[in-house]
Amino acid sequence: MEPPRHTGAMDLKDVPTPALVLDRSRLETNTRFMAGRAARLGVQLRPHMKTAKSAEVARVATAGQNGGITVSTLTEARYFLAHGFTDITYAVGLAPARIEEALALVRDGAKLNVLTDNPAVAEALAARAAATTLPRPLGVLIEIDCGDGRGGLQPDAPELTGLAGTLSAPNLQLAGVLTHAGHSYGCAGVEAIALIAEQERAAAVFAAGRLREAGHACETVSVGSTPTATHAHELDGVSEMRPGVYMFGDLDQVGLNSLPLERLAVSVLASVIGVYPDRVLIDAGGLALSKDASAQRHGTDIGYGLVLNLQGELLPGAYVAKANQEHGFVKGMPQRLAPGDRLRVLPNHICMTAAAHPGYYVVDGGIEVQARWPRINGWEQWS
Amino acid sequence: MEPPRHTGAMDLKDVPTPALVLDRSRLETNTRFMAGRAARLGVQLRPHMKTAKSAEVARVATAGQNGGITVSTLTEARYFLAHGFTDITYAVGLAPARIEEALALVRDGAKLNVLTDNPAVAEALAARAAATTLPRPLGVLIEIDCGDGRGGLQPDAPELTGLAGTLSAPNLQLAGVLTHAGHSYGCAGVEAIALIAEQERAAAVFAAGRLREAGHACETVSVGSTPTATHAHELDGVSEMRPGVYMFGDLDQVGLNSLPLERLAVSVLASVIGVYPDRVLIDAGGLALSKDASAQRHGTDIGYGLVLNLQGELLPGAYVAKANQEHGFVKGMPQRLAPGDRLRVLPNHICMTAAAHPGYYVVDGGIEVQARWPRINGWEQWS
Repeated sequence: MEPPRHTGAMDLKDVPTPALVLDRSRLETNTRFMAGRAARLGVQLRPHMKTAKSAEVARVATAGQNGGITVSTLTEARYFLAHGFTDITYAVGLAPARIEEALALVRDGAKLNVLTDNPAVAEALAARAAATTLPRPLGVLIEIDCGDGRGGLQPDAPELTGLAGTLSAPNLQLAGVLTHAGHSYGCAGVEAIALIAEQERAAAVFAAGRLREAGHACETVSVGSTPTATHAHELDGVSEMRPGVYMFGDLDQVGLNSLPLERLAVSVLASVIGVYPDRVLIDAGGLALSKDASAQRHGTDIGYGLVLNLQGELLPGAYVAKANQEHGFVKGMPQRLAPGDRLRVLPNHICMTAAAHPGYYVVDGGIEVQARWPRINGWEQWS
Repeated sequence: MEPPRHTGAMDLKDVPTPALVLDRSRLETNTRFMAGRAARLGVQLRPHMKTAKSAEVARVATAGQNGGITVSTLTEARYFLAHGFTDITYAVGLAPARIEEALALVRDGAKLNVLTDNPAVAEALAARAAATTLPRPLGVLIEIDCGDGRGGLQPDAPELTGLAGTLSAPNLQLAGVLTHAGHSYGCAGVEAIALIAEQERAAAVFAAGRLREAGHACETVSVGSTPTATHAHELDGVSEMRPGVYMFGDLDQVGLNSLPLERLAVSVLASVIGVYPDRVLIDAGGLALSKDASAQRHGTDIGYGLVLNLQGELLPGAYVAKANQEHGFVKGMPQRLAPGDRLRVLPNHICMTAAAHPGYYVVDGGIEVQARWPRINGWEQWS
């Protein structure tokens, strides 16, 4: 385990803005909560690192678990493998041009699962895997659509067993089925989310049953999404769940009742650069906050984020009403500010917001910076 | 001048996706167009590099000009200085904590202008500049609000001349006034934009006149925005303009009549990862395209971008209807596709989209990659 990268004596008044602030104790509360959910539901927790994209956060999220993680890019897979995480599921449908990259990860020591629902991709996988030497098979999960309408076969699709047959090939292992209830984000209320969670469970378990009846081992039955992982009543027949955004939370997840506002672990630190009678300008704009407006549907006056003071206390009524590239427009400030004053913004959708930043300044309740934790952004590292 | 970074024999079928594609001849058409506008209007062109963030693009955009550029972060300023651009205006209100960084840039050879409208920042600038040794003064522009309601003093604000007085200090130079007609983005029709351009001009010229009457030199009278630079009838009394997004264009600029669709120079290359009866999934989602939805106001069925084939030809009716983190949902495809097929997406707002990528794969009409041009993203480089 690498030591955290210390920053010397530094606090949030010294950090160049805009920047991400991560509260370590809130992160730990959130990861303990989800570990408890997984234990109660009797499934493994395979945290999705698409939100945090950080080895240090992954260590916190996998504490007490079996060490498996989920990623959203093969660039993440390569990074996490280099940081000692070997059991990795890449939960986005595999592009044929990425097959060699996936095989190389297995060759370099990963216990990797990839995802597809497509016979042409399955055939390409079988052909390429057969033409190489691997220390262990590349795992392949079949994607199932549980009602989200993104990727996946319908659970009762006739093609399911044929696809499994194609994947029963040298150097491949049919690992099981995977589904994602993205439509839980459209729900109003926890009972509606619990209903989607049951749809998600039932679709995955039904598809797994069909595969087993056809004579295929189907070890993994994987479901995901922070709202359904938080509100599912039971997950009988499921082997693992893959939530990700729960580690940090965001205003959208608060609106979805995934966690209370007091547990949001990441905010964007900003400096005041202009003061006017009806607004304050900060140096966190559309790039530093993202233009994701998802949480606006849960209530009025959220804009591009709610505003905290430097210490992390909510400033009632203050929000980022508008975001230009490098300018955030704060309205509703309950107190007078001056240029150079610092604020923190709770974002709408932290997966989008965090991606603009190189990493996290880590605090623990206060404003003292304890560490800097880097992120692995993007799809390709240019030197 | 550095040579372009060649990539060997490579075409867009070999590029890892998602990735930015830049068409060099369209870039040159767009920069010639804006250079012609500046010449006809009798002003200098100080291209805003906030969109492109690339030294190679800046060389194209400053060809035939006096070499001055505009930037949106001091990280850009540092990068462009290292690439031989010395005459730099940082056109975002200066945060007090960035004063030392600005002074260091002057010390390292930059002819730098910074921006403020605030007496406390002006006093801090005067104090810090007086306490150091510089090879030339740090230029300071006073920000004027021409009706946009972002930063700036009103042109008739009584504080204007007092602020100029504060800035008449050792190692500082009052460089002039700067304004930005961001409200041109809310216009319907070119005559409405021309009217905003006249507001922008009049506000800057009026404020400059007041400063001159009070005995201050006011060399720079700077206006900006691609829509107003494109549609202004005249810019009498203005010294320079600072448009930026015109170099590439995007669907929002097409909607604003800044340029036709055929001149859009940057698209996002994507691979098909899933094929379904009513949709195609591509590996360019909310991160690769951004969640900026600005262009949706100009028409229906634009979503998160219009879709081209690999060669760059528009596929009529096809658009990115929805964007999850790593999934784009393409609807309206006029032809059948298979996993691995490649598409290109014209984005809504290229400033936001480009920021997720490390740089550009440069083509010239076809699909052969001629060079890779890196970008300088973010606010801080972590090793």
